[in-house]
Amino acid sequence: MDLKGFLIVLSGPSGTGKNTLIDRVVPHIPNLQYSISATTRKPRPGETDGVDYFFISDEKFDQMIADGEFLEWAEFVGNRYGTPRFFVDERISQGQTVIMDVDIQGALQIKKMMDEAVLVFLLPPTWEELRKRLNKRGKDSNEIITQRLEHSFEELKYIVDYDYFIINDQLDKAVERLITIIKAESCRVVRADLHSIQRLWQRR
Amino acid sequence: MDLKGFLIVLSGPSGTGKNTLIDRVVPHIPNLQYSISATTRKPRPGETDGVDYFFISDEKFDQMIADGEFLEWAEFVGNRYGTPRFFVDERISQGQTVIMDVDIQGALQIKKMMDEAVLVFLLPPTWEELRKRLNKRGKDSNEIITQRLEHSFEELKYIVDYDYFIINDQLDKAVERLITIIKAESCRVVRADLHSIQRLWQRR
Repeated sequence: MDLKGFLIVLSGPSGTGKNTLIDRVVPHIPNLQYSISATTRKPRPGETDGVDYFFISDEKFDQMIADGEFLEWAEFVGNRYGTPRFFVDERISQGQTVIMDVDIQGALQIKKMMDEAVLVFLLPPTWEELRKRLNKRGKDSNEIITQRLEHSFEELKYIVDYDYFIINDQLDKAVERLITIIKAESCRVVRADLHSIQRLWQRR
Repeated sequence: MDLKGFLIVLSGPSGTGKNTLIDRVVPHIPNLQYSISATTRKPRPGETDGVDYFFISDEKFDQMIADGEFLEWAEFVGNRYGTPRFFVDERISQGQTVIMDVDIQGALQIKKMMDEAVLVFLLPPTWEELRKRLNKRGKDSNEIITQRLEHSFEELKYIVDYDYFIINDQLDKAVERLITIIKAESCRVVRADLHSIQRLWQRR
């Protein structure tokens, strides 16, 4: 039977392991693929347009914002990044499932633009564990990490706008849970082509 | 973390294999148990009150209907059968998941009484296959079977009120799909105790 695809959005505080989790899940689900972002950043050596990112100009980015062509967008260190709606729509209409990770503000923007998107909130097992992971990365000072944790705690209230949550206490279990969620979502009546169900029944 | 349980209702046309499917799924999910119906039918040898059924009088059944204590009820060959709300509520509040099979009218009654119940529509692979299965049972005449199939086809329109659908083309796959749905549903934010999530984060 024909099934519509859907967009699955994994988000949660930084340091919870969103990327690792998606990398581990993608090989297990046929027709599951990463979303490709558009960015105003210049390509780095080895990066290909339309594969790693859609590399676009500032003017084009402005135009796409104005035309409502982004499911979400944000600026990081002087460059803008966004999720183009056309890419997601195209894949979904082909019956594929698109997965992406984004911060909580981005996920909330997406839910507004595309109510049928499936939002998954990834949680660290404890606050202390998240602090440990952020320390281990060695990217930020203690002060920055504390600020980031405070911010994450604040944002925890948005979990009520999400469909699912996964506590990333053991990576293998988290992988299994995300696979389970994606598989179950493809059994949703809203994703089924009801005409094709009726056709199955009319062969008599 | 504490999780609320939920009620999962499997329904669909007769002959699709609802009972077989539940029997196969129950051993795989901890804390999953059958709902126990109340009935006005007399106990048969070997049946135990509170295990096989709650055996109750006609007067008690009337009273329970009047008090809105049934999630659904129906009459079959002179006896009444119903799903008592207290049993389901009690188990759910203990974090257990309750599963039951019921016909489509029953499932729709339940959804009205308990919006958070999870409804799964079980479909035979084709109309012809369902006819074969009903014939194989040898219980009914061809005419009755044809009537039943027509009725089932009519009721197919109610699938839009369901959360999930499973096509029972291969039993093993259908078992896997139902397990997946139950596991994914227990990752839903609506089933989580948000206070206990916040508590996890406040140990610092």
